[in-house]
Amino acid sequence: MRIRLLGTAAGGGFPQWNCGCVNCCLARAEPARAWPRSQCGAAVSADGRRWFLLNASPDLPAQIQAFPPLLPDGVRRGTAVEGILLTSADLDCTLGLLLLREGERLTVHAPAAVRQAVNVGLRIDRVLACYCGVEWRLPPAEPAPLLDRRSEPTGIRYAAFPVPGQPPRYHTAGEGGGVGYRLEDEGSGARLVFLPGVAEWTESIQAQVQDCDALLLDGTFWAEDEMQRLDVGSRTASAMGHLPVGGPHGSLMRIAALRIPHRIYVHVNNTNPLLIEDSAERRAVEAVGAMVGWDGLELSL
Amino acid sequence: MRIRLLGTAAGGGFPQWNCGCVNCCLARAEPARAWPRSQCGAAVSADGRRWFLLNASPDLPAQIQAFPPLLPDGVRRGTAVEGILLTSADLDCTLGLLLLREGERLTVHAPAAVRQAVNVGLRIDRVLACYCGVEWRLPPAEPAPLLDRRSEPTGIRYAAFPVPGQPPRYHTAGEGGGVGYRLEDEGSGARLVFLPGVAEWTESIQAQVQDCDALLLDGTFWAEDEMQRLDVGSRTASAMGHLPVGGPHGSLMRIAALRIPHRIYVHVNNTNPLLIEDSAERRAVEAVGAMVGWDGLELSL
Repeated sequence: MRIRLLGTAAGGGFPQWNCGCVNCCLARAEPARAWPRSQCGAAVSADGRRWFLLNASPDLPAQIQAFPPLLPDGVRRGTAVEGILLTSADLDCTLGLLLLREGERLTVHAPAAVRQAVNVGLRIDRVLACYCGVEWRLPPAEPAPLLDRRSEPTGIRYAAFPVPGQPPRYHTAGEGGGVGYRLEDEGSGARLVFLPGVAEWTESIQAQVQDCDALLLDGTFWAEDEMQRLDVGSRTASAMGHLPVGGPHGSLMRIAALRIPHRIYVHVNNTNPLLIEDSAERRAVEAVGAMVGWDGLELSL
Repeated sequence: MRIRLLGTAAGGGFPQWNCGCVNCCLARAEPARAWPRSQCGAAVSADGRRWFLLNASPDLPAQIQAFPPLLPDGVRRGTAVEGILLTSADLDCTLGLLLLREGERLTVHAPAAVRQAVNVGLRIDRVLACYCGVEWRLPPAEPAPLLDRRSEPTGIRYAAFPVPGQPPRYHTAGEGGGVGYRLEDEGSGARLVFLPGVAEWTESIQAQVQDCDALLLDGTFWAEDEMQRLDVGSRTASAMGHLPVGGPHGSLMRIAALRIPHRIYVHVNNTNPLLIEDSAERRAVEAVGAMVGWDGLELSL
């Protein structure tokens, strides 16, 4: 299974257009010390030919452009994107769908609550019906073949599992929480867990991640009160549905002891000190053998 | 008046994520012969401090990042963007509004039909109300001061004029046509006309543009049947609401005789041969003293 991190920043990207926090200023002035990152997403393929996108940030067209295997190959119009798997209805996970409207019908895998939120709150279904159209697929709770656009197997089995979280701010009426995905290469047996948003580390989450080969994990905030400390916002990490990385109850302590070969933080907010290449927080992550993802990082499992 | 072209391509940008036409392939293989371009928009300021955006493409955050005068200046969160003027409700002109949601309330200037289309068709107003909120302003038909967020004059007078065109595909129930803008520097008297979408060259359009100092004009298609010829689509330029540049009735013939110092094509579709640096079509434009805009081009009038 080949995995490409298309983007690794949280909503707004890094640096963020209107942010003058210490991190964003450093990313503009000395990008070698704080690498710019586009909004979070990944691409996965078992055969290197048919690819699935994990989430659809508004940076998706540029991310596709930067990764030739996704581009049309010898055809006038086309794509190697066989489907898009959504974990959440958040704008930074879904607006990219509208930016793929020039192509063929999109195949979007999303749990019912996410599908409802984007269709009621953003009218994604109605809008895209005027362009490419959408075929919705409900991801299975138990591993099942991940099919391409022609409903042929692609060598990957996948399942979605519920994740504690917040509903999108634009549609709070729904159930809220999104999902994580487990993807398994039917050939090599390699397992990827994609979990870019998680509000709480439950036993169920632990069970989902503990035996995987690669974990792409929510790295939005280092600390619960990070936005307040930097004077750029008043909301806490919890209120925004993200378990912080640091602290005695943070996700780093949870994953430190797990025997997962690749533990990679993604969806990193512009305020997170993990974005600074030489920060103490970055060293703490690397000290346990985990890492902070960057745009363009690839894994072969 | 200072003018910056933030982006100069039509919807989908150049190259387009799923396009393998000759232009897009050249832009990927030899970008010096076909410069990549982001989606159309511009920034305008009379005092160099308070800026107005002309349209809001989904490439806006990256475009802001690439133009330091728009960035927060010595503040934790902030922007020099005082307002956004919309010409059309098309997705490539408006989706960027959702990507400015992390800031303060947006001030958006739009004619009633455009406002209705984005609010009914995309729920822009309802969605942004959950984040930054929007203050809508109706652009005047006769020149009036363009005010900043605090309703202070900015040294620019502006007016919107109706333009023949198509309604956005996602909301065809409305009136359809968008507007063009005339902006005049109250100090220098310099006049800019922003007209990135026009379906027909009427006497009224002619009257609006003929005495300006700079014209940013719809350069979407060179030819009426360009999409068909390149085998990437079946819709004609007219059906998509754009007067072609070339041909005996094209816009180039219209502007060739006008004494406008800066005649610049923008909103150029990925299929347009004008994008090729050494094409005959490019030479034809330059032969009459007009030009094809590029991302980052600046004018001082």
